[in-house]
This record gives sequence, structure tokens and C-alpha cells, in this order.
Amino acid sequence: MTFPATASTDHELGLGAIRRARELTEPALRDIVDRLGPSLGGVGRYHFGWWSRSSGASGKAIRPTLAVLAAEAVGAEASDAVPAAAAAELVHNFSLIHDDIIDNDELRRGQPAVWKEFGVPAAILIGDALHSEAFGALLNSGRPGAAAAAMRLSTAMREVVVGQVEDIRFTERPWTGEQAVRIAEYQSMAEAKTGALLAFSASAGALLGGADTAVADCFDRLGRHLGLAFQCTDDVLGIWGDPAKTGKPVFGDLREGKRTLPIIAALTAGGSASERLGVLVERGVRTDFELRLAAELVEEAGGREFAEREAARHLAGVDDCLASLAMPAETRACFEDLAQSLIGRSR
Amino acid sequence: MTFPATASTDHELGLGAIRRARELTEPALRDIVDRLGPSLGGVGRYHFGWWSRSSGASGKAIRPTLAVLAAEAVGAEASDAVPAAAAAELVHNFSLIHDDIIDNDELRRGQPAVWKEFGVPAAILIGDALHSEAFGALLNSGRPGAAAAAMRLSTAMREVVVGQVEDIRFTERPWTGEQAVRIAEYQSMAEAKTGALLAFSASAGALLGGADTAVADCFDRLGRHLGLAFQCTDDVLGIWGDPAKTGKPVFGDLREGKRTLPIIAALTAGGSASERLGVLVERGVRTDFELRLAAELVEEAGGREFAEREAARHLAGVDDCLASLAMPAETRACFEDLAQSLIGRSR
Repeated sequence: MTFPATASTDHELGLGAIRRARELTEPALRDIVDRLGPSLGGVGRYHFGWWSRSSGASGKAIRPTLAVLAAEAVGAEASDAVPAAAAAELVHNFSLIHDDIIDNDELRRGQPAVWKEFGVPAAILIGDALHSEAFGALLNSGRPGAAAAAMRLSTAMREVVVGQVEDIRFTERPWTGEQAVRIAEYQSMAEAKTGALLAFSASAGALLGGADTAVADCFDRLGRHLGLAFQCTDDVLGIWGDPAKTGKPVFGDLREGKRTLPIIAALTAGGSASERLGVLVERGVRTDFELRLAAELVEEAGGREFAEREAARHLAGVDDCLASLAMPAETRACFEDLAQSLIGRSR
Repeated sequence: MTFPATASTDHELGLGAIRRARELTEPALRDIVDRLGPSLGGVGRYHFGWWSRSSGASGKAIRPTLAVLAAEAVGAEASDAVPAAAAAELVHNFSLIHDDIIDNDELRRGQPAVWKEFGVPAAILIGDALHSEAFGALLNSGRPGAAAAAMRLSTAMREVVVGQVEDIRFTERPWTGEQAVRIAEYQSMAEAKTGALLAFSASAGALLGGADTAVADCFDRLGRHLGLAFQCTDDVLGIWGDPAKTGKPVFGDLREGKRTLPIIAALTAGGSASERLGVLVERGVRTDFELRLAAELVEEAGGREFAEREAARHLAGVDDCLASLAMPAETRACFEDLAQSLIGRSR
């Protein structure tokens, strides 16, 4: 796998795998949400909107897709992975619902966030319910490997929450100087916050497909690399992404003062652009002129290139994991295309 | 077991069991919270306060105690139940932390609630972390029965959350008329909100002790009856409890307009006192005079007696469960004393 030079590919294999995973997982999710009764179930149905508004090349069903592909990779049926796919989607969505309260984000998938529509109490409670249901989806499946997968889910959720706390605490630290966020700290946060759940998705799919611990661990690593490649790409899009495609304002992450990889790398690179950027962000980036200047300085100091190189490095990591695993050629091609489609977004 | 005529017993057996369960469970809980890292772990340590401020006859460690006693009842060591005891205490505390946000309660165990001290984001996240750790505590124990116990935890948490939603929705309904909350609805809510987690505690302790499904189901019923006996008693204390003992204001539940069993029973009883109560609560109970009058009308309409009779009925249910289970005489005596100590509070 090489870093894509253009965005010209259609990623039909990856998109096909996503579609298949969605079609398999959605009925299971609907059953689970319906079981929450009319009140809470209604809140859940509102949140999910059953993916109708959120489909697209960026792959909102990336976690179920990883689970399904991993099961197929180890020789099982796609349907064997459904409890893992459902669990991953449940915790991902519980996490989004709680995050929107935490971040005071009023919009999710083009509609008012759950807390905005139903209030904070309902948003906390539906999140808690989906969280428990994720464990239930695995454990009630009766499949061998389900308990091992649920163990991994518990560990992954600890990582996710600790990563979220680190991410919040980053914003309390100065932009420059000894106390500034270092690249290694950012990477550890991103691996926890984004990588851990993709690692769970892939390894749990493999476990439900009958894989042993060593193979599951390899899918865990694959998921982590994919998560980090995705996060690095997302960080590039957060500054230079096309608002028409990302749905976010131009220079969005700079506006919000987020500590993302391009800016952390630029600030720690040294040199004239890096120093000028440090002075600028310490003072606060508000006007359009300042935003454009900050983005230019991040690029000049090598922050964008660093993040893109990191994305490529993690994509190579995905490649290495795939190389070490025996699987049908078609499944391998799906994995590769899925990874390419995720990272191809930034080009 | 008979309804206690006085509160003169010291409940030494029950208190001894509680102390033992605490001493066994606390190290496990501390390890789990410490693993959440300095930031989040600190929030967790603050919340727990490690029971130092909350000990007392009402038994704040009732859930771990049920788990430990159930394991001993089926012939296992008390220590075998620790993963279940820790899981129960983790979900109970996660639920308290999230509830305090939902109910806007500023105090918990004599100190500012987590959301008040650290903010809503930290309170949401530590709750989510403890929730996952509860499943982890069970699944990582490596004990046979752990996966079955974790399945029950998932189901119990669905009940708890659905019960909380019902409880919140009760307050949106009129006090009287066709749309008023009925006794059966209240009982179903209370069983879900309070009984389900006690049912989990007892049945999971039994499962980790090696019990089969039928025995675990019997401990589940025992926990439900105990939870309902506890809730009925708590409802009586919520109106007539001694503020010096309950730590809550006199007529507290009437002040807050809570739909508890004595008032629902009084309102649906019919008769003169019931009708006068209906008029009073529809208009709103605010002054001390109105509060005293409302409490008197609830009692006159038979609401207090009904709730006390329900508590006794569920205590008899605990008794029936105990009678159908073989266990060492000492363990049986501990269960009985624990149940008596919970319900004896109201006298």
C-alpha cells in the first residue's frame, strides 16, 4: 500500500464492505434500541437516524466494517461478527452522545444533538443504556470468543475515556514552552481516543470469528494504526479541509484552538515560522487574517507535512499487519481499499 | 422472618457482614480507580471517599455484602465474590455520579457532588469509566460464571436506566385522574431502578461462587424483594424519617413533589382524606403547614400503612427465597439480619 497520489479512485471495494456491514448490523442495532422501551428507545432512534444522513466515503460505519472484515479474514461468516459490529457501533454512538454534552456541541449529523433536543438528562441516560447494551450484545451472542471480546471492550473504553480526559486537559496547557503538549503525548492521546475503539472493532470481529489471541492482537494493532492514520488525516482536514466536503468551517480547528498534530508539530519544529506561530497562537487567533496566517505558518514550519507523513506511516503499519495475516485475497483488498479511502480524504 | 416491632436490635450479624464485604472489596476498587490515571483516578478517589463518611446501619455497602453472602451461601469463599462485589459497587457509584448531574443534586455523602466539584464533563467521564470497569472487573476475574454474571449486569443496567427514565417521566404526569401514576407502575419502576442492581449483586455473587442458573435466579429474586423492601422503607423515611438520622429535611419527598409509594397509594385509595390530599397536591404543597397537612392526609388515607405493608411483604419474599435455598446457618442468619436492618430503619 502506498500513499495515494490522487483522490481519483472510487474505493468501490471499501464502500461495498461498509454497505455490507451496515446492512448486517442495523437490524441488530434496531432490536437493541427498541428494547429500551418507548421513551428511551425513541431518543436512541432519533440519535441513530439509522445512518441515512451520514453515509459517504468517509465511512461512518467504519467500526462495524472492521469487525465484519476481520471475521471474514479468519474464515468465518460476516454475520458471525455482528455482535462485535453492534457493540462497536453502540459504544461509538454512546460516546458521541456524551461528547456532545461535554463539548457543548449542538449539532450532530445535521440535526440537533440529543442533549439539545431532549435535554442533558435524557442524553446521559441513553448514553449509559447504549454503553451497557454494547456489552450485552457481545455476551448474549453465545459465541465462543464473546467474553474475550467483552474484556477487550472494557479495556478499550478505559483507553477512550482516559484519552478524552487527556484531550480536554491539553487545552488547559500553554501553547509553547516547557509545559506545552509534546508530539508523543498527542500520539498517546490519539491512540487512546481514536485507535482503541478501532482496535476493539477489528480484534473483536476476529475473536467472534474464532481467532486466537495472537491473531486478535494483530487485528488490534491494525485497528490502532488505522485509527491513528484516520486521526492524522482528520487533523489535516481540520485546518485545510474543504468545508463543502468536511461540513466544518475552514480553519475550524485553528478557530477552536484545538491542539492537533499539525500545530503541535509546527510549534515544536523550531525555526522562524515555528517561533512566529508560537507568538501568534499565544496571543490568540481570531480574525480571518490571523487564521490564514496561522495556517500558513503551520505549513511553513512543516506541521502539515509531518501529519501527512504520520498518516502514511500508520497506513504502512496497517499494511504490515495485513502482510502478517493469512486471509482471502478479496478480504485483504477490502481492508486495503478501506484504509486508502480513509486517508485519501485529505488529498 | 417477621416485621420488626422495635428498632432495638443491634444488627451485629448484618453489620459484621457489611464490614467484611467492605474490607474485601475496597482494595479491588482502589486498584481499579488508580488504573484510571492521575486525572480521572483523582476524580474517582474524591467520589468514593472510601466509605469513611458514609458508614452506618443503613448499609451503604449493601450490594457488595449481598454478593459476598451469596457466594458463601453456595459454599464458596467470600473472596470469590469480590469481582461481583466490585462490579456492583462500580455501577452503583457511576449511577450516583450521573444521577447527581441529572437531578442537579449538589451534595453527595456530605461533600460537593462530583459535577459540582470537577464540572459536568469530568462527572460524565468518570461515570462512563466506572461503568466499563464494572464489566472489566467481572470479565478479567477469569472465574467461571464471570461471563454469565456480566450478561446479568448488562440486563440489570438496562432495567436501571429504563427505571430512571420512568421515574423522571412520572413527575411530568398529573397527581390525580386517569393520567396519574398507578401503584403497579410505581412498583415496576422501583423494581427496575432499585431492585435490579441488588438482584445482580446477589445472583452474580452466587454465579462467581459456582452456582447454577436456577440458584442464581433465586438469588436474583431475593435481591429484587430486598430492593423493593428497601425502597418502600426509604419512601416512608422520605416523608416521616428523622432528619437527624436520614440526613434529609423533614417531609423531604413532599417538598420535592416526588411520586413515592405512600402518596400514590393515598391518592388512589379513595375516600375523604384521599380526595382532600388530591386537591392539596394539585395546588402545590409549599408552606410548613401544607407539608404537615399533606403528611397527615397521606397517613389518614392509608398511604403510610400501605407502604409499610409492602415493605413487610417483600421482606417475606426475601424469607421465601432464603427458605428455598440450602446454605450454612450462619450465612442465612446474616442475610436475615441484613434484611431486618434495612427495613428496621423506618421504625
